[in-house]
Formats: sequence, C-alpha cells, structure tokens
Amino acid sequence: MERWTDSRIVFQGKIITVRTGTVVLDDGTTAYREVVEHPGGVCMLPFTGHSVILVRQFRIALNRDLLEAPAGKLEGAEDPLRRGLIELEEEVGLRAGRVVDAGKVCATVGFCSEVIHLFLAFDLEETERRPEPDERIERVEIPLGEVRTGLREHRFDDAKTAVLLHRLLAHLDGPR
Amino acid sequence: MERWTDSRIVFQGKIITVRTGTVVLDDGTTAYREVVEHPGGVCMLPFTGHSVILVRQFRIALNRDLLEAPAGKLEGAEDPLRRGLIELEEEVGLRAGRVVDAGKVCATVGFCSEVIHLFLAFDLEETERRPEPDERIERVEIPLGEVRTGLREHRFDDAKTAVLLHRLLAHLDGPR
Repeated sequence: MERWTDSRIVFQGKIITVRTGTVVLDDGTTAYREVVEHPGGVCMLPFTGHSVILVRQFRIALNRDLLEAPAGKLEGAEDPLRRGLIELEEEVGLRAGRVVDAGKVCATVGFCSEVIHLFLAFDLEETERRPEPDERIERVEIPLGEVRTGLREHRFDDAKTAVLLHRLLAHLDGPR
Repeated sequence: MERWTDSRIVFQGKIITVRTGTVVLDDGTTAYREVVEHPGGVCMLPFTGHSVILVRQFRIALNRDLLEAPAGKLEGAEDPLRRGLIELEEEVGLRAGRVVDAGKVCATVGFCSEVIHLFLAFDLEETERRPEPDERIERVEIPLGEVRTGLREHRFDDAKTAVLLHRLLAHLDGPR
C-alpha cells in the first residue's frame, strides 16, 4: 500500500496525462513515482467459426506494423462493450450477434493506469467499415489453425491480442 | 506506414520520455501523435514443477495491488535474460537452472514503445531476496491447478503475467 503525498501533472495530452510526485510507503518512507494516466480501452476478438478477424496497423510508437484485435480508447465513463461494438464496425465492418466477456488486462502496471476490457465476438454480420481519417487499417482473416501455430511460435506481439487469442482457444477448447 | 515530420520531447522523466508531434501518412496527410518512450522490460515466470511463484505488489498507477510475475525494466542496451535472472533473485530469491524463451509482448502499442521480453524459468534453487528500498513485494506461490482455474475465470489482470501463464500451460500441455 502506498499513497501520493504530493503530485503534479507534468504533461496533459490528448490521450495521456503524466503525473509525477512523491508517495509514502507503509512504513513512512517516501519514493518518487511517474504515472501515465490513460482513460482505458476495449479490445474485441471477432471469430467467424473458423477464423479470427484482426487488423494490421502501423504503430509509430514501435515504428512497425502489428496484428491486433480491433480496439479503441474509452471516452470518459463510456460503457466498454458499447465502445467495443462501435470499433468492431468502424475498423473491420462487423456486427456481433453474441459477445462473451473475456475479462480485462492492465496494460503496463509499473507506470500506467490503462485497463483494457476484453470481449470475444461471435455470430458476425458484415456491415460497412468506417475507419477514422488518420487510421490506415488492413483487415486480416486468420484461420483457427494458424492462430494455434502462431501462439505456439509467439508470433502475436501485441499483448492485449495475445491474451484474447489465448482466451478464445480456452473458450473453444474448454478446460483441461 | 507513417513517419515523424516534426516532433519534440515534452516530458523527460526517470522511467519514461513523452514525445509529441506530427506524422505524415502514406498518402501525404498528416496527423498528431503522442508517444511514451520506454526502455522495455523483462518478465520471468518461475515454475517449481507444481506451482508458479508470483509477487503481489501495490501499484500506484492503478491504486491497487496486483499479482505479477517477477519483472524489471531494462537499463540501456542490457541483455533482457541477464536482467530477468537478476530480478528473479532480487524479487523472489530464486536462481533458475533452465530458462525457456517465451517470446515478447508490446505492452500498449497505441502510444507506447515498451517491449517486454518473456521467459519461463525452471530448475529453481532458493537464494536470498534483495528487494529495492522502495519496493514492497510479497512472494506468492500458486499451485498449477489454481493457475488453470484463475486463467479460466480471468483472475490475472496484469497483461504480461496473463500471457506468460497461458504460455506456461501451452509449454506444459503441448499442442492440441
């Protein structure tokens, strides 16, 4: 257990806020902390019955493209599932007839408040894609067999997507 | 594909650096981006043969404690495995006789450069714990059966830890 004794916002951006300051630990000692405040997000893994639908997207933070499950940032106190269904339509043009809660993950707990809500999406219906003006998104369909091989060979580098793919397999295969 | 046309550092901390600026997209349009630069990290999952050893730690960014596999930040161009073995000794007092590469994950690709290298650690030997002065870490042993139940019930919220636990099960159970 620790709590801020004093802190201040050192950067206020459009996506993140950075807070730094001093915390006091349980025994009264103090320590410096640096925290990125983030509104949180949602990530949806659509499964057609034989394939997952992912997006390939260039990410400037890593200077490379990555395969990711469709995802988006929450606006304020928005319902994560509602936002997830919107992102699913915008990014890959899919409507989900059935959604299964797949928990949540904290993206990087050492310095960041971001929580990502996870869902599996089934009973898909094709609609129209509407990417944001500054998004360049390629829709990629990956058969279940390749998902299994790819996970075994650690080929899905995006953390939220790796967790969701593992959870899809657990959902499909049942406990063992 | 996109690249910075101009950018500047708006915050330089002890752990993170924040860069903002303008990128140019493939068709020449421009967009604003906010990026957290992070040196990357390593996360080790020690398995005794019947239990995993995790740490419970309060994280001020989330204002709660979390169960995590032992982990640490890389210093400069440090070898991830070397750093991981040091963290394993410091945080849980374990030396690993055998280590299996479990890939890597990008923590939160939308705005952050952090890459976390993942390893499974076997053939464990007890040594002495040496936590950092500002770390309050409780060592927690979780039997494999509880790991399986916990994953099924989405009880491991830390993303890197969830990926590593899934990868341990895949390693132990083999393909299916």
